[in-house]
Amino acid sequence: MKPIKSIKIEKDMKVSKLVKEMGGCGFGAGKISLASDIFKEMVDDEKCKVFLGLAGAMVPAGMKSIIVDMVNEKKIDVLVTTGANLTHDLIEALGHHHYSGDENISDAELNKKGIDRIYNVFMKNEVYEDMENFFDEHWEVISKCKSIKELLEKIGSLIPEEKRKESILGLCYEKKIPIYCPALADSGIGLMIWGKKAAGKEIFVDAFEDMKEIIDIAWTSEKNGVIYLGGGTPKNFIQQSLQFSKGAIYGIQITTDTPQPGGSSGAPLKEGISWGKMNEKAKFVDVFCDITIALPLIYGSVK
Amino acid sequence: MKPIKSIKIEKDMKVSKLVKEMGGCGFGAGKISLASDIFKEMVDDEKCKVFLGLAGAMVPAGMKSIIVDMVNEKKIDVLVTTGANLTHDLIEALGHHHYSGDENISDAELNKKGIDRIYNVFMKNEVYEDMENFFDEHWEVISKCKSIKELLEKIGSLIPEEKRKESILGLCYEKKIPIYCPALADSGIGLMIWGKKAAGKEIFVDAFEDMKEIIDIAWTSEKNGVIYLGGGTPKNFIQQSLQFSKGAIYGIQITTDTPQPGGSSGAPLKEGISWGKMNEKAKFVDVFCDITIALPLIYGSVK
Amino acid sequence: MKPIKSIKIEKDMKVSKLVKEMGGCGFGAGKISLASDIFKEMVDDEKCKVFLGLAGAMVPAGMKSIIVDMVNEKKIDVLVTTGANLTHDLIEALGHHHYSGDENISDAELNKKGIDRIYNVFMKNEVYEDMENFFDEHWEVISKCKSIKELLEKIGSLIPEEKRKESILGLCYEKKIPIYCPALADSGIGLMIWGKKAAGKEIFVDAFEDMKEIIDIAWTSEKNGVIYLGGGTPKNFIQQSLQFSKGAIYGIQITTDTPQPGGSSGAPLKEGISWGKMNEKAKFVDVFCDITIALPLIYGSVK
Amino acid sequence: MKPIKSIKIEKDMKVSKLVKEMGGCGFGAGKISLASDIFKEMVDDEKCKVFLGLAGAMVPAGMKSIIVDMVNEKKIDVLVTTGANLTHDLIEALGHHHYSGDENISDAELNKKGIDRIYNVFMKNEVYEDMENFFDEHWEVISKCKSIKELLEKIGSLIPEEKRKESILGLCYEKKIPIYCPALADSGIGLMIWGKKAAGKEIFVDAFEDMKEIIDIAWTSEKNGVIYLGGGTPKNFIQQSLQFSKGAIYGIQITTDTPQPGGSSGAPLKEGISWGKMNEKAKFVDVFCDITIALPLIYGSVK
Repeated sequence: MKPIKSIKIEKDMKVSKLVKEMGGCGFGAGKISLASDIFKEMVDDEKCKVFLGLAGAMVPAGMKSIIVDMVNEKKIDVLVTTGANLTHDLIEALGHHHYSGDENISDAELNKKGIDRIYNVFMKNEVYEDMENFFDEHWEVISKCKSIKELLEKIGSLIPEEKRKESILGLCYEKKIPIYCPALADSGIGLMIWGKKAAGKEIFVDAFEDMKEIIDIAWTSEKNGVIYLGGGTPKNFIQQSLQFSKGAIYGIQITTDTPQPGGSSGAPLKEGISWGKMNEKAKFVDVFCDITIALPLIYGSVK
Repeated sequence: MKPIKSIKIEKDMKVSKLVKEMGGCGFGAGKISLASDIFKEMVDDEKCKVFLGLAGAMVPAGMKSIIVDMVNEKKIDVLVTTGANLTHDLIEALGHHHYSGDENISDAELNKKGIDRIYNVFMKNEVYEDMENFFDEHWEVISKCKSIKELLEKIGSLIPEEKRKESILGLCYEKKIPIYCPALADSGIGLMIWGKKAAGKEIFVDAFEDMKEIIDIAWTSEKNGVIYLGGGTPKNFIQQSLQFSKGAIYGIQITTDTPQPGGSSGAPLKEGISWGKMNEKAKFVDVFCDITIALPLIYGSVK
Repeated sequence: MKPIKSIKIEKDMKVSKLVKEMGGCGFGAGKISLASDIFKEMVDDEKCKVFLGLAGAMVPAGMKSIIVDMVNEKKIDVLVTTGANLTHDLIEALGHHHYSGDENISDAELNKKGIDRIYNVFMKNEVYEDMENFFDEHWEVISKCKSIKELLEKIGSLIPEEKRKESILGLCYEKKIPIYCPALADSGIGLMIWGKKAAGKEIFVDAFEDMKEIIDIAWTSEKNGVIYLGGGTPKNFIQQSLQFSKGAIYGIQITTDTPQPGGSSGAPLKEGISWGKMNEKAKFVDVFCDITIALPLIYGSVK
Repeated sequence: MKPIKSIKIEKDMKVSKLVKEMGGCGFGAGKISLASDIFKEMVDDEKCKVFLGLAGAMVPAGMKSIIVDMVNEKKIDVLVTTGANLTHDLIEALGHHHYSGDENISDAELNKKGIDRIYNVFMKNEVYEDMENFFDEHWEVISKCKSIKELLEKIGSLIPEEKRKESILGLCYEKKIPIYCPALADSGIGLMIWGKKAAGKEIFVDAFEDMKEIIDIAWTSEKNGVIYLGGGTPKNFIQQSLQFSKGAIYGIQITTDTPQPGGSSGAPLKEGISWGKMNEKAKFVDVFCDITIALPLIYGSVK
């Protein structure tokens, strides 16, 4: 048994040192450190395909640059995310901002001011107008897309070049990182497409087309690794793609959802072993933490 | 101010009485009772379209009959759910069971026995074979579907008549309750379709087709009411459909997700007021509880 | 393996039937039913001493009558609770009320109105005056108490007879159920005693005196059973008393605290097996639920 | 409105810089940064008395050195904690360790090996023997103590000088920082005293004696600040001491308990405004996070 080593904080300490020191501790601190170690090993393992599942409103909350960095440095091979994160990414690429707010403010007041609230992050409702303009301007090329992945790639390519380096959609296009988003209809981007269809415009995007590709990646790679930032569809879609593979050999999950209510989002990674989604010999860790706290800390320790 | 009335439990008490008594209490008890009142008012209001968002693994956990009852008694007008719930519904319609299990058992052992774990519910992995047979047998008609709603309706119609009354898919087909499932690809049913496509069969289901219909319902109804059992895509897809409507005038949310990490699943209903998804004059309540506890209690009080 | 049986809600269903039906379900529903079974077995086992640990603000929330019923029907042998619950019990015995409130109201406004908030329960700050009068009037007898248990028994005896049947303090006095409250100083009752001491009055209550008694009960009884409604000091003090006994043979824990942050309140009952606080052959269940929802449901099923 | 600034992670980044960057983000990240700012302002404000409430098993988890540092650097004026933290502090001062463990291991196996589990931290049961020896050796001086604070001060003084600098008890004694622990009976130290009393030895420690002192500090200081690491008795005892003061003017709370179940531990700091425990003009923040993650991060940013 390895003794707990009480964490010693030093002046001007580096994040990497702090996280290393956390490794001597129990509870969540030890898990942050373990996640850092697994992250390093996973992204450095050249035989491993890294699947990032990104749920939550991580772009509005300010986590975009970390995802962009991971893509830029080829730390991940596949991104599965929500339509919401991609919509907010596009909104920022179109020059809009999200804003710091107070979660206890009156929602009725916000509504009167045309401000949408995401916990303590605010967004002006007017962003939808520029989204509409973007889809108006580019409808011809967008409407030709046949799969969700292709559609997202196309949107990425339409983001002005100087903005692409700071956009998940833009940079994934440039770096040829596939983005899968099974529930894209359930997002602002979905609403834009609905608007066109409601106006009589045509587009046919196959709901199941992307499955072959992601499952092929999962089945043909030598090793798979997973990073789940939140649960929901992104986590589940990756899990499903791994179900009849050898199972992931590395895993990191960060969420504050808990196992007891039985949902997939709160299920610990080890549950995936029964399904074959996680390999029983995998190195993995469940970090019970707000993603916006744990992710910068872990990423800051491996950068 | 209304005094708290300490709850008095009686022998042979009825659920309806218990929930009424909870109305005199604070914390979650009071909210259960309020949810019961709002539920009654919402489903009795003939001008109100009721949207049920059903996430989580509620079918494996044994909540299917309550959903079936709601559909049968026309208590809901629209169902939005996950592919997982529908997959498990189909699995049961094909004659398979889910099983009570122990969440602390070895997942590696379960894997060796071909058993998949969902917290404390188990499922035999062999169910996938019968799913495949079902899709083999019915592929011709299934493959003609052009939207997710149509596909689910078709699957419902293919469930043997004597089984339909106990199946969400089957009964929704019979009662003409539309089922929307934006992320259907992310489920066992999705896997079946992938299998066919991987084998060279054709099917073309439009990812965005159903949006027009659900948004039309939301926009043209006189009043809207929402019931969110868990968050995820089901909640968000309903919220989005209501975004540019007058907003829901009734709302019930049951989840143990919390607002602090910023995700849509844990966001309280009042956050929706800022977006216009919830009307600022709405009657609504957030119940912080395991759905499998709160739902039978609330439903038992209004049945 | 026992198949999950989807729960069937009937009109005019009794609570006992509902909870029995929950036993066919997974997730929390199954645990409610198991808790009901264990509760019955524990309280019916004549050789078993039942220790109830009661934390949280259960009296303000309206759970008092259930505790009073348990005491009245001799369902429990020992009560360990917080000073807060006892203070609120005394406040109600002195004729005051708690009130239903809104957790989103302005706390600054409440403060100006002299109202104290406990989530969605309100209390008038003026109750402290009657508390002071009570301690003024009875100081002579109160000040003679030498242990916390004796002090609480004395306060119980001072509650007017007609009020005692509805008071935890009053009824425990009448029924000779010992109340232990290690952190009594940390409560309104503690503040009253501080007020007297600050005014130069003398009282000498030994902080450690009650340990002998509760440990004797735990060590000499044939069997022990525990019911933890919330964690904190009440749970821990009972656990500690059992540490060097044979361990509890029955256990029920209801809390929404989770294991991951490492605190005693969220620790699952099985963790107690390592310490010897829980017997490894014990029948026990952890219910992840708001106490004000789970307790009426469970108690309603066994009444 | 201040735009969210997506967090940019740099190589070899310092913790202080990371936390500053988090200040541009929403959700928990922004709160960590705000907590860091409030911490700095609070401890630098010479007119402010800082009350630290320390619950949870923070010593076993490896947080001891941070507390020791805070005491050493006079960052706090008053410590209120659980008997458990002090017991584990004494255990380490006596030369024992806590150990890193696996939370999924069999508790029955651990029990057979004499190992006690605290989530993923282990402790050998044999530590109690050295505790007993310590109390045997020093009983004469210990038994003369009349208040809990005095008792803890005495224990601190009995820790060998070379060990004191790494012990909360030892250093608080040296630095004259009072430790209050209303529920000391509920701990290993309490068990030691019980053992002596059970063996016929005498000691009389007044349960209410310390209240005068802590309330005097709260009432006579120009300003008060609070840091709640977890809830329970430590938080509540500080809150109570502030109830009839001007209220704390600075506040930091770190916990993963949530408001909905109504307990004091999960209550947000603003609830304290209604009671007058928190000043309505206070600078305060609630951080929803595992303490072992948030505390090193915040402390690392201000060191």
